[in-house]
Amino acid sequence: MQWVWAQLQRLSSAGQSWFVVSLAGICIGLNAALIAILTEWLSDLKMGYCSDGWWLNQEFCCWEIETDGEGACAAWKPWTKYTAGMWFIYTALASLFAYLAAHLVRSFAPYAAGSGISEIKCIISGFVMKSYLGLGTLIIKSLTLPLVIASGLSVGKEGPSVHVACCIGNVVARLFSRFSRSQGKMREIITAASAAGVAVAFGSPIGGVLFSIEEMSNVFSIKTMWRSFFCALVATVTLSAMNPYRTGKLVLFQVTYDRDWHFFEIIFFILIGIFGGLYGVFVTRFNLQVAAFRRKHLAAYPITEAVTLACLTAVFGYFNRFLRIDMSESLYILFKECEGGGDYDNLCQSTAQWPMVNSLLLATVFRFGFVILSYGSKVPAGIFVPSMAIGATFGRMVGIIVKAMYRSHPTSGIFAACDPDVPCITPGTYALLGAAAALSGVMRITVTVVVIMFELTGALTYILPTMIVLLVTKSVGDWFEAEGIADEMIRFNGYPYLAKNEHAFNIPVSRVMRTELHTLAAAGLQLTAVGKSTISQLNDGFPIVTPDDQRILLGYIGRTELNYVLQKANRGRHVHSETHCTFIPDPSSTAPMADGLVPHLTDPDVIHGMDEDDPLEMSVSTAMDDVLDFGPWVNQTPITVAPQLSLEVVIQLFRQLGPRVILVEQHGTLVGLITVKDVLRFIAATEHASSSDSNVDSVGALQGVLEEAWLWTSECLGSVQRWASNTSSSIQGRLR
Amino acid sequence: MQWVWAQLQRLSSAGQSWFVVSLAGICIGLNAALIAILTEWLSDLKMGYCSDGWWLNQEFCCWEIETDGEGACAAWKPWTKYTAGMWFIYTALASLFAYLAAHLVRSFAPYAAGSGISEIKCIISGFVMKSYLGLGTLIIKSLTLPLVIASGLSVGKEGPSVHVACCIGNVVARLFSRFSRSQGKMREIITAASAAGVAVAFGSPIGGVLFSIEEMSNVFSIKTMWRSFFCALVATVTLSAMNPYRTGKLVLFQVTYDRDWHFFEIIFFILIGIFGGLYGVFVTRFNLQVAAFRRKHLAAYPITEAVTLACLTAVFGYFNRFLRIDMSESLYILFKECEGGGDYDNLCQSTAQWPMVNSLLLATVFRFGFVILSYGSKVPAGIFVPSMAIGATFGRMVGIIVKAMYRSHPTSGIFAACDPDVPCITPGTYALLGAAAALSGVMRITVTVVVIMFELTGALTYILPTMIVLLVTKSVGDWFEAEGIADEMIRFNGYPYLAKNEHAFNIPVSRVMRTELHTLAAAGLQLTAVGKSTISQLNDGFPIVTPDDQRILLGYIGRTELNYVLQKANRGRHVHSETHCTFIPDPSSTAPMADGLVPHLTDPDVIHGMDEDDPLEMSVSTAMDDVLDFGPWVNQTPITVAPQLSLEVVIQLFRQLGPRVILVEQHGTLVGLITVKDVLRFIAATEHASSSDSNVDSVGALQGVLEEAWLWTSECLGSVQRWASNTSSSIQGRLR
Repeated sequence: MQWVWAQLQRLSSAGQSWFVVSLAGICIGLNAALIAILTEWLSDLKMGYCSDGWWLNQEFCCWEIETDGEGACAAWKPWTKYTAGMWFIYTALASLFAYLAAHLVRSFAPYAAGSGISEIKCIISGFVMKSYLGLGTLIIKSLTLPLVIASGLSVGKEGPSVHVACCIGNVVARLFSRFSRSQGKMREIITAASAAGVAVAFGSPIGGVLFSIEEMSNVFSIKTMWRSFFCALVATVTLSAMNPYRTGKLVLFQVTYDRDWHFFEIIFFILIGIFGGLYGVFVTRFNLQVAAFRRKHLAAYPITEAVTLACLTAVFGYFNRFLRIDMSESLYILFKECEGGGDYDNLCQSTAQWPMVNSLLLATVFRFGFVILSYGSKVPAGIFVPSMAIGATFGRMVGIIVKAMYRSHPTSGIFAACDPDVPCITPGTYALLGAAAALSGVMRITVTVVVIMFELTGALTYILPTMIVLLVTKSVGDWFEAEGIADEMIRFNGYPYLAKNEHAFNIPVSRVMRTELHTLAAAGLQLTAVGKSTISQLNDGFPIVTPDDQRILLGYIGRTELNYVLQKANRGRHVHSETHCTFIPDPSSTAPMADGLVPHLTDPDVIHGMDEDDPLEMSVSTAMDDVLDFGPWVNQTPITVAPQLSLEVVIQLFRQLGPRVILVEQHGTLVGLITVKDVLRFIAATEHASSSDSNVDSVGALQGVLEEAWLWTSECLGSVQRWASNTSSSIQGRLR
Repeated sequence: MQWVWAQLQRLSSAGQSWFVVSLAGICIGLNAALIAILTEWLSDLKMGYCSDGWWLNQEFCCWEIETDGEGACAAWKPWTKYTAGMWFIYTALASLFAYLAAHLVRSFAPYAAGSGISEIKCIISGFVMKSYLGLGTLIIKSLTLPLVIASGLSVGKEGPSVHVACCIGNVVARLFSRFSRSQGKMREIITAASAAGVAVAFGSPIGGVLFSIEEMSNVFSIKTMWRSFFCALVATVTLSAMNPYRTGKLVLFQVTYDRDWHFFEIIFFILIGIFGGLYGVFVTRFNLQVAAFRRKHLAAYPITEAVTLACLTAVFGYFNRFLRIDMSESLYILFKECEGGGDYDNLCQSTAQWPMVNSLLLATVFRFGFVILSYGSKVPAGIFVPSMAIGATFGRMVGIIVKAMYRSHPTSGIFAACDPDVPCITPGTYALLGAAAALSGVMRITVTVVVIMFELTGALTYILPTMIVLLVTKSVGDWFEAEGIADEMIRFNGYPYLAKNEHAFNIPVSRVMRTELHTLAAAGLQLTAVGKSTISQLNDGFPIVTPDDQRILLGYIGRTELNYVLQKANRGRHVHSETHCTFIPDPSSTAPMADGLVPHLTDPDVIHGMDEDDPLEMSVSTAMDDVLDFGPWVNQTPITVAPQLSLEVVIQLFRQLGPRVILVEQHGTLVGLITVKDVLRFIAATEHASSSDSNVDSVGALQGVLEEAWLWTSECLGSVQRWASNTSSSIQGRLR
């Protein structure tokens, strides 16, 4: 009987987290399906409308009706027959969508802008950003994402859909006290949700799990991996049951391949890999320059910027067959094998091969430029699919050229491995490899990309080519010492995040630690003195030392806890300014953890000093007559190290155990204190010193160009304004 | 110019580790191909021989020649036409192979026995087992593995092939001083090699990478993952270029599926998942009981045991069509769709469905028994493929039953989703899911299994069913609180390894630490006193404290270092028994790490106190006239914690930073010391206390049965012996 009861308790306790993860997964799947449906409808709306019902997109409008080559039917009406008119309406609608999206984001949820991957990485590593994953962000980002994609801006919905998924995870989990009370547990749920976000964005559940391991989390735990697995599974099953595209496929650009590759193709694969690596390096560098420029000049005009970009993209993009259509659709077209029907705009015809190469090259170059300008603008904007699109146009171009070479010299030695009866070169697979290379180049992830590509195509035989391409891409990136765009953005924004790459500093922690400390003596302080401490905004907390000169370290108290006790005490009115304060922890109680003060002991990262909210739930201490006892709030076991310990080990401690602060003591005496920010400041200073040796400009080439264009534009606008005001005043003068 | 030089240096430094990893990958691929070819030839040899050349296996003997339904041709001669004769030869050859394998292992490389996964996990986590990954083990294990598989024992070659791959990684890397000098770097190479081992065993490069993350390593690092990725890629490309099966496939049991699954099938998938979970739980428990029995009674008869098992397996297995053939081949047969030709022994005929179910059930039950008895016997023996084979026979049985249900009630509501024109149920996919469930159940890994199954079949649509099955399997395992068989074996063997599952102890480290310490005073000790310390084999090293009563902690010296200096000093003859010894570290030098004494600072796990060999490479200290200075060998920055720190955090420190010892100090004073072994001893004591509450017998049911069988057998043998000696003495008496 007791056994049954114990089993039931175990079940309900384990059940709650399973329930939360399932619920989050289901919501993520539903939300992804809605976003997909809305995106398709809005995208089609730029070209025409359905006469059978305005709410139908082109596909459903023409469902089971005879269509022409491009999928149009009688019920689907283009806006106008004239190309110029279509072009105008297309551009106008694109700009309108961008305006709506930027306006909504600016007015209701500024956090909905951008991709969100960088910020979520920081949140998962322990950085607190209130309401970044809130309900408002969730709603606005879900609504504006289809608008942005339909506006044709060169941005993707995959990054933002990770942010949306994490918002869902956060909102759902917050409903349960077990999670809302523990930041550690919340972070686990957010990690799992990020896996589900990638899973639904790419229809790739295992890819999602790997993404959460390779990119998002910096501490690996089997339990978190398992949660991610489950959440991604539930989300994918939900999406698959919703079947938003009515094709049984989970994403638009899912394809399958029949044919195998040949060993001689490896030389072309290497070429594609090099492209991916260079793409990643340059898009990241240029985009950072644009970001610097944006921060300097465009911070006040987010809506204008988004509308201008959408307008420009539409104006130029309309005339290129690969830029005009939706990116997911173009990926599908580029990935597909030529055989088996459904040629798009003569892409497969060898008669049209050179115009097609031209068109693909233009698409690659234009989109490269637009991605650099658009990623980071103040609308939901990811970089996954745009990168894949650029890689795919480049790859397809290479594929067509190789095919043309084969056609003109079929008996050449290099093509000896080709079977004369079946098509030897499949340009679609080159497009796939190009997409993989560009994605890996810009994000600096490898295993995840292989799995995603594999789950998109199911082509067993293309695992090895994909791995070879990514090997080259990664080597090129390593050569340039490039980091992923998410990490670069974290650094650009100055978030406190320790990147995964390992530095070798060869110095002890004593060289980096802060030595000017604001400590609190364990006894003998008066309330006013303690109160003054909390005014300083620079300290997260205060080491407690013995009142004598030896400064033996006794513990650590966070500023939040200090404030909390002070407020409670002031409210209770048992205290006055001369009340003595003691900070002596109770030696009979062991660590606060053992008292059950921090609720979830099994969480590897919930250790004292990290979860700032939890200690607030402790019972209020009774302020005695003339002594206010802070003892129960003092963390007796802050993480301490010796001053000679090497900085690398301290960085590892920060990364693995996640404390806010590490105290440095020598033989019991406090000598310093170090935080993640101190480490980052030191790294930045080191890198600045080494980069100033070489001839790298602080203002990059692109930023210079932009600055000049900005000057010129403002001058133009200024003269127009002057002319307008002159004219209007002269008109007014005449009228008067 | 300087820049070019710097780049070249970077290249050559990075190049060496790339070179080592590539070389290891190539060797692993070649070795896997050789093992595969040898295994197939030996397996076929049990049934017959090739008249065109004894070195050809059946497939190559009949290459491009007309064959009958089972692949036999005129050139391939069975040993005899009579079933009884065939049975005898089959059994005799199986026993011979087992004898050869067991004899080679026993005589030349005892470490080649078993799977090796458990031991490699310990080695990767920092445990030192000399020559476990040596050249001898590599050669003997590579040679005996084909013999064991051909002997028909219910063991697999996938686990051992991981061990073989790790041996190759170790042997190759040891040739380069950069690796042989650093245990941390060696561990990275071994992790990468384990990935390559799985990659070639299953033809699944990404599966291999995930295996190294999920099962092998307990610290996750992007760099190690990338190494694993590269090593697995090289090994797989090599294997693919060798093409051992001449079919373009990397493993025997690779298949592809055309058809999709239906939602109603989920109920049967859940059944398969439950089977997998139960299989894992019971095979692990029973196998541990067999292992206990083996340790007690069979330790002296490893060869007899292996031969007996092989003989029994052959005697019984010969009459079951699924047990008679090679396990990889039977997996291929069971996984295959029925359509598309190549039916094995009427497996696909609905007329034979009930005999087939019977046969599959028998195969499941028999192999279950044989796996329990065979895994752990003193020959190379893995449990991956046997588990998959058991799961596959069970799954195929379920599939055939479901298909029979559909055939008899095609219009039933449950089958409404079936398209009448195409086959609705594909029993082969049930076999695949069964194999996945059993593999996941016994190893307790999930993501890896999904990827491996996916890479075996390329069936995009079967990712979700596989995930659902593994979800159920994992839940069943969790319910029984089961651990993977590798972790159970580690515990059974008492290796110092902290498993990944997270305990909640709620106690401070002071409750677990050792307080009876053998410390060394920093000054004032005479050489004889120091010399005595090294006699105690119980201490890995000694904390250095101030000579006064305060016992302020100054550092830590390992026993190896202490011995080294003592030997050097004795050899130099500058010392006598009253020589004073000092252990005062030089405060001007920072940590030993900063002196470049530990060569590879970027290694996250090469921190002082872990790599025992490196300090030996330091220049010899000059023993002065009457003072022997141990200062340079003292680690100034051992990892220290406060006594109130919770045990969970200490366990995390051990796992993440990998020190041999953690010192416990209170306000600078040394109060205790803790090692991994102390933690494990505590965990074992806790678990023993809680398990003795419940009614678990220390001698399990199976062990009881075995004990009785053993008694009975020894009695029988004893009476036979007595009878024989009586008879012989009476004969001798008569003759005399």
